[in-house]
Amino acid sequence: MKESAFSTDNRWLLPEGVDEVLPPRASALEDLRRQLLDRFSSWGYELIIPPFIEFLDSLLTGVGHDLDLQTFKVTDQMSGRMMGVRADMTPQAARIDAHQLKREGPVRLCYIGTVLRTRPYGLGRSRDPLQVGAELFGHAGVESDLEIISLMLETLAITGVTAPHLDIGHVGIFRGLAREANLSADVEAQLFDALQRKARVEIEDILAESNVAAPQRDMLSALQDLNGGVEILDHAQRALHSAGAEVQAALKTLWSAASALERRHPQVPLHFDLAELRAYQYQTGIVFAAFAPGLGQEIARGGRYDEIGKVFGRARPATGFSADLKTLLAIGDYQASPPPQGILVPWSDEPALLELVRDLRAQGERVVWALPGQQEGARAMGCDRVVKQGPSGWQVEAV
Amino acid sequence: MKESAFSTDNRWLLPEGVDEVLPPRASALEDLRRQLLDRFSSWGYELIIPPFIEFLDSLLTGVGHDLDLQTFKVTDQMSGRMMGVRADMTPQAARIDAHQLKREGPVRLCYIGTVLRTRPYGLGRSRDPLQVGAELFGHAGVESDLEIISLMLETLAITGVTAPHLDIGHVGIFRGLAREANLSADVEAQLFDALQRKARVEIEDILAESNVAAPQRDMLSALQDLNGGVEILDHAQRALHSAGAEVQAALKTLWSAASALERRHPQVPLHFDLAELRAYQYQTGIVFAAFAPGLGQEIARGGRYDEIGKVFGRARPATGFSADLKTLLAIGDYQASPPPQGILVPWSDEPALLELVRDLRAQGERVVWALPGQQEGARAMGCDRVVKQGPSGWQVEAV
Repeated sequence: MKESAFSTDNRWLLPEGVDEVLPPRASALEDLRRQLLDRFSSWGYELIIPPFIEFLDSLLTGVGHDLDLQTFKVTDQMSGRMMGVRADMTPQAARIDAHQLKREGPVRLCYIGTVLRTRPYGLGRSRDPLQVGAELFGHAGVESDLEIISLMLETLAITGVTAPHLDIGHVGIFRGLAREANLSADVEAQLFDALQRKARVEIEDILAESNVAAPQRDMLSALQDLNGGVEILDHAQRALHSAGAEVQAALKTLWSAASALERRHPQVPLHFDLAELRAYQYQTGIVFAAFAPGLGQEIARGGRYDEIGKVFGRARPATGFSADLKTLLAIGDYQASPPPQGILVPWSDEPALLELVRDLRAQGERVVWALPGQQEGARAMGCDRVVKQGPSGWQVEAV
Repeated sequence: MKESAFSTDNRWLLPEGVDEVLPPRASALEDLRRQLLDRFSSWGYELIIPPFIEFLDSLLTGVGHDLDLQTFKVTDQMSGRMMGVRADMTPQAARIDAHQLKREGPVRLCYIGTVLRTRPYGLGRSRDPLQVGAELFGHAGVESDLEIISLMLETLAITGVTAPHLDIGHVGIFRGLAREANLSADVEAQLFDALQRKARVEIEDILAESNVAAPQRDMLSALQDLNGGVEILDHAQRALHSAGAEVQAALKTLWSAASALERRHPQVPLHFDLAELRAYQYQTGIVFAAFAPGLGQEIARGGRYDEIGKVFGRARPATGFSADLKTLLAIGDYQASPPPQGILVPWSDEPALLELVRDLRAQGERVVWALPGQQEGARAMGCDRVVKQGPSGWQVEAV
């Protein structure tokens, strides 16, 4: 890993998981930001800038307990109401689609911005990731999921993350089985938790104690083994053949996704995990995450979340992905443009020199004034040329 | 004023003074951001990205009471210490110069990012301005102030703010006179407050009750009338002729600035106000603000603040400016590039079509997939062309 967002050099000054970006890394991040936003635009995604802070009820309704715990809260002195600093921009995008844009048909939105979290999270153990993402609203088919997955893979390619692999699941499988088994909310939560940890003994104990009928119990228990390459979709078809329509539809979606991804991105290894639901609190359908070789934690993730808009009065199908751009810059092999050289100019009020400086800058040159009394010469100021008074006026010379 | 950051359409959903930026304004803001950062770079300013949140002591030491009141505070669950969300990035830039970069000689830094404030502030009554600014560290002369003022004026020109005028003051004049008059901190604060409001009777009362000797009293009282065009520097010279070295040095700086600005920016009206110190809590020298015609409140401001670095172990001369880019976009006549048209493409997995889409995007085209089942045609999706299957394969056609 390169010199990175994860360096801890100055952490004694900054809170844990909070970092500042200095030159030249800040300018590499800016380059990358522009490339990504331009690419999103070329895919038809429109930029939005969601607010940094909102009333808690619009920020957190329908997004689940984890995000609530991750959200910094402050009192609004103007209204006395509680506000939260955004910890995830996806629900904000859904609110904007449902409540502000109110368009019919597919709406494509993208965003980039800092989010804050009360506790370190993810690969960089960051509390201030630079979240970048894209969301597609208004289309319920697997095709919009595929578009989002392709855009996520393109994002990784731009940031120089080579050879990522994809983890794919579908929350409808566990949810459907839990519903058919009539699990209480409490037991469902315990089982969900045990499945995430693939805690085999615990899973069997919970199921044994819960009076679930045999076929449902066996199917819920089978989930922990349903992970691997595309062949596990075959196993799932057999193991879950007596499950209801919701589960069958989810399996069908996974089949479609698998075959389309193999056609469109044959170089990307696919891994399916029908029990993997971690951190997908507001998801409703297919879920996916990208991993880089050798790193155990996801570097980008997303999925379908058709229900969030409902709390804003307008449920719309929705799918999207997001990532932390600081993490991608740290782990990817992104080649930023080299720092510009420049021209050091002696301080003067002479109109001819002021005009020359204006012209040089307009031509894209970096032009730095030498301030009266400064000791540092051209090289120290990152300049490879200087302006000097020559026989025919001011002229640019190499150092 | 155009459709703007100040619109209140959806305020019932968002906290007062908090706003979200929707298409197409978000993309205009992004364009403007790029132009400004590129211009700053052409002046030799390096981008930094200060943290969004810091421990209160590093965020607020030395910056004054106003900024403290403006700062949202939260408890760090990791350390138990208090943290603040940045309300101003200038002190953060000073910390980064003093504590992280530790270079000798002039250092030029720029930044752009959201800051949060507990109460609405400034022209847009905003609590979440997009602060953009530039800071020049390591040079104490008026030349670095002039560079910063020129860059501020260039920023306004880029954002389409025409015919701004400049207000200029110098905090050394009031501070010097208050010191010479041996004012108690309490009386100094009262007088400062009354001077800001130009509350003539109150000023005279405070001075009469304070036992200040006649020459000092007359000079402090004279400040309220020392505002107007460059001629007031003449009046000041006479009215303050018996003041000490600090005041004389301040006047000399104002003279130098006035004559250089008249040479460099003859089209910009200058207004001097020797009592105007509002909101310059950490300033130490020349202070300035830009105004747009017809708007009573400043749209950009800055000044010298040589002492902030001291709390981070390294006092460095410093001068800089900042503005709210959302305000500048709202009041300026910035012409954003028109929203791109595009090409609507029927959904298909056919390799030839996927390749065509890739090529078109690589050429800078906006290419939007028509998702299966969608009702909206090319025009509704903002596209002026479509891809159709022709006799010789896929081809782009006008709608």
